[in-house]
Amino acid sequence: MTLTETLSRIVGEANVLTGSDTARFDEDWMGKYHGAPVCVVRPGTTAEVSAVLRATYAAGIPVVPVGGNTGLTGAAIAPGQVQLSLERMNRIRAIQPEARIAVVEAGVVLSRLHEAVDAHGLVFPLTFGARGSAMIGGNLSTNAGGSNVLRYGNTRALTLGLEVVLPDGEVMDLMSELHKDNSGYDLKDLFIGAEGTLGVITAAVLKLSPKPRAFATAMVTLDRLDPALTLLNRLQEATGSAVEAFEYMPDHFMRRLVEVRPDLAPPLGTEAPVTIFLEVAATAPRDVTPNEAGEVPLTALLEQTLGGMAEEGLILDAAMARSEDQRRRMWAMREAAAEITRGLKPQVDNDICVPLDRVVEFLTRAAARLAEVDPSARPFVVGHLGDGNMHYTVLLDSDDPVAQDAIREAVEDVTRALGGSFSAEHGIGQAKLPSMTRRKDPVALAVMRRIKVALDPKGLMNPGKVLPSE
Amino acid sequence: MTLTETLSRIVGEANVLTGSDTARFDEDWMGKYHGAPVCVVRPGTTAEVSAVLRATYAAGIPVVPVGGNTGLTGAAIAPGQVQLSLERMNRIRAIQPEARIAVVEAGVVLSRLHEAVDAHGLVFPLTFGARGSAMIGGNLSTNAGGSNVLRYGNTRALTLGLEVVLPDGEVMDLMSELHKDNSGYDLKDLFIGAEGTLGVITAAVLKLSPKPRAFATAMVTLDRLDPALTLLNRLQEATGSAVEAFEYMPDHFMRRLVEVRPDLAPPLGTEAPVTIFLEVAATAPRDVTPNEAGEVPLTALLEQTLGGMAEEGLILDAAMARSEDQRRRMWAMREAAAEITRGLKPQVDNDICVPLDRVVEFLTRAAARLAEVDPSARPFVVGHLGDGNMHYTVLLDSDDPVAQDAIREAVEDVTRALGGSFSAEHGIGQAKLPSMTRRKDPVALAVMRRIKVALDPKGLMNPGKVLPSE
Repeated sequence: MTLTETLSRIVGEANVLTGSDTARFDEDWMGKYHGAPVCVVRPGTTAEVSAVLRATYAAGIPVVPVGGNTGLTGAAIAPGQVQLSLERMNRIRAIQPEARIAVVEAGVVLSRLHEAVDAHGLVFPLTFGARGSAMIGGNLSTNAGGSNVLRYGNTRALTLGLEVVLPDGEVMDLMSELHKDNSGYDLKDLFIGAEGTLGVITAAVLKLSPKPRAFATAMVTLDRLDPALTLLNRLQEATGSAVEAFEYMPDHFMRRLVEVRPDLAPPLGTEAPVTIFLEVAATAPRDVTPNEAGEVPLTALLEQTLGGMAEEGLILDAAMARSEDQRRRMWAMREAAAEITRGLKPQVDNDICVPLDRVVEFLTRAAARLAEVDPSARPFVVGHLGDGNMHYTVLLDSDDPVAQDAIREAVEDVTRALGGSFSAEHGIGQAKLPSMTRRKDPVALAVMRRIKVALDPKGLMNPGKVLPSE
Repeated sequence: MTLTETLSRIVGEANVLTGSDTARFDEDWMGKYHGAPVCVVRPGTTAEVSAVLRATYAAGIPVVPVGGNTGLTGAAIAPGQVQLSLERMNRIRAIQPEARIAVVEAGVVLSRLHEAVDAHGLVFPLTFGARGSAMIGGNLSTNAGGSNVLRYGNTRALTLGLEVVLPDGEVMDLMSELHKDNSGYDLKDLFIGAEGTLGVITAAVLKLSPKPRAFATAMVTLDRLDPALTLLNRLQEATGSAVEAFEYMPDHFMRRLVEVRPDLAPPLGTEAPVTIFLEVAATAPRDVTPNEAGEVPLTALLEQTLGGMAEEGLILDAAMARSEDQRRRMWAMREAAAEITRGLKPQVDNDICVPLDRVVEFLTRAAARLAEVDPSARPFVVGHLGDGNMHYTVLLDSDDPVAQDAIREAVEDVTRALGGSFSAEHGIGQAKLPSMTRRKDPVALAVMRRIKVALDPKGLMNPGKVLPSE
């Protein structure tokens, strides 16, 4: 029996895609990584995932799990390999509003979960531009971040329990709904962020939060980035740490934005050196009940803080969203980042994180370093400033891989010198393998390899990703 | 050269304790676990820890790390073994107030860290009764919880980076100061909570939080536990989730409290079936600036919420702390738990967690089940109600281990039936090994064993703890 036949017996013929039917799995959405799989198998249940892996394990065949295929590091691309798509495992098994948890399968699209919990007055706070395609399994496997990490933490912080199918098909039940559970090693967090190299995540117990009663949302312009940290700190202090988004968009980003998306007219134009997009949210009634003057306390706090900053000459201008429509348009400007970056080629993308108070220094030093390495290099930047996380894309004239890696290495040098990480939220995949070799603590890398061998002795789970070859 | 000589060359003779000098390491502080080590070695630096482990690894000698020796499961007791005390590694390497982090060594006593960061207007929010002796390394190795988990999370959630010495003496540098760092497997969280069975934690980067500007603290009495969840939910809603502590103390706890600690007179007496100790904290100026009526908004919110609950007949009475002294006395009542429980013998301690809305059912069913198993059994309970975490000690007439294990198994049965965990925050150590065998998902247990073998192939790190023998 051929492999395709074996897999068809498990999941049904219609759920083993081959030839041109795999087209949507052949390339990542940024168009950077290519390679058609030999087949895509689409199990519909945990039991089917288990049976598929039992079969591939017995046959010694590598497997590459894939969710919504919105990753940015080529982690789910599988040239000539078997791809295991979780898209049919798309059930929201339960939403328990009292306990504030959702039990979901790996193939649930993030925005569908958003809608489902909204009906209960709750939020699953993880959010980013690709939420309409990205799946929970991929979010978990990359420990996805996004724009609300500042307030709510990354995917790991939002996860209570996990169901994982191991390389040999065994199902591991870590589906705890508890906030305290010290019953042995923290296996959950080992599989979160492992990018499918240790097993396949099939379901999770996720934490929900109360839906904010009101938002105060603004775009702010500055003539330089330095005072932005003061703005963030004042807002956090005034609101008791209620800042949900604090995003950096420099002038080159804004100009590209209106070029690609003329429908999104920035309220303060595109010429200020720095635009900050920010949002504060209130869950307590006292923050949203209008006072005698008819002001909503949350909005008033933001206006006062911005007014003070303007008086001191620390910001140029500010525009508050006065309607939900205006708020959504501001979000759309930030979330257009991937869309407007995609067409800029050649490019080298970097997803770095430095301590919050080192961001300005990072930008200054990286720009200087790039000029030395390649006079054609121009940074194209957008960032989760509140986390110290910069998506630092470098545009250059050459698409020579050696020249590109020299750029990457230069950015890594500056990041490392400032105590930062070469990978903040996008993960490693294929893209950051050279960075792992160069930058990861060698003892930690060796420990990772030992864990990989212990849990995937045949090396079948997403081979060639995350761990550089020795 | 004898082992003691080898170790003396590394750390100095004065730092290798033998004979009667090891007395304070021979027994845990609850008096449950006994056994003198052959020696206690006290390295003063990471390099010395590394040299010690290189020596013990080469000689094939097991090592048991120990911090403040305040654990409750016998994890640090080492009969006839080498104990590695971190007490000399007690430097606070750095406090960075702007970045809100502290870099500390494993031997720093928790309360010392509290004092050090207080000077910067910050808090390290982890807190529990033993904070005057417990050390950061032990907090990390047990993923300690305590009374503020509700608001700030457990030790894992408070840790950004880690320094670990592996069984063979290699030093692993995971000392990230970043809030986003997806550069490979999450090794940090694997070593947190591993109770020294995978390596020795020598230092950590810890997250700090702004010190609250004000607290509103109260004791509340109820004639039954059911409405307590309503109280918690109303408080969280009114304050925007600012509840820091929400603790359950039943009448038998209160009566024992005044017996052992007559200096601590509970403001509402000891006879109400249920006493709740709670605290709400404010970090934003608007919550602490008195209004026209001279009321502090935070205090007014708590009074209004309690007033509403009283009017509806859901609570019996409430006493607010009107001074810092009164507040400290209320905390002292809750934190006397270990002290007042210690003398009650024979006892079987259980540290369970169930979903928040199952606590009442747990208490009812567990009491019924105990009555069947042993008519002499009486629960003695205190709990972090806001987390669903109950310290469910059972007093009984027999100190026969078989009878005691039957009690433990009965409590586990009820816990399991309600979706709970047999270990919430105290860890496994020696105490919960039978529970691990009975209750842990067998696939997860097998994965734990594979990780143990991969990272500690000679089985030298705290052998016989956490993982039950096969």
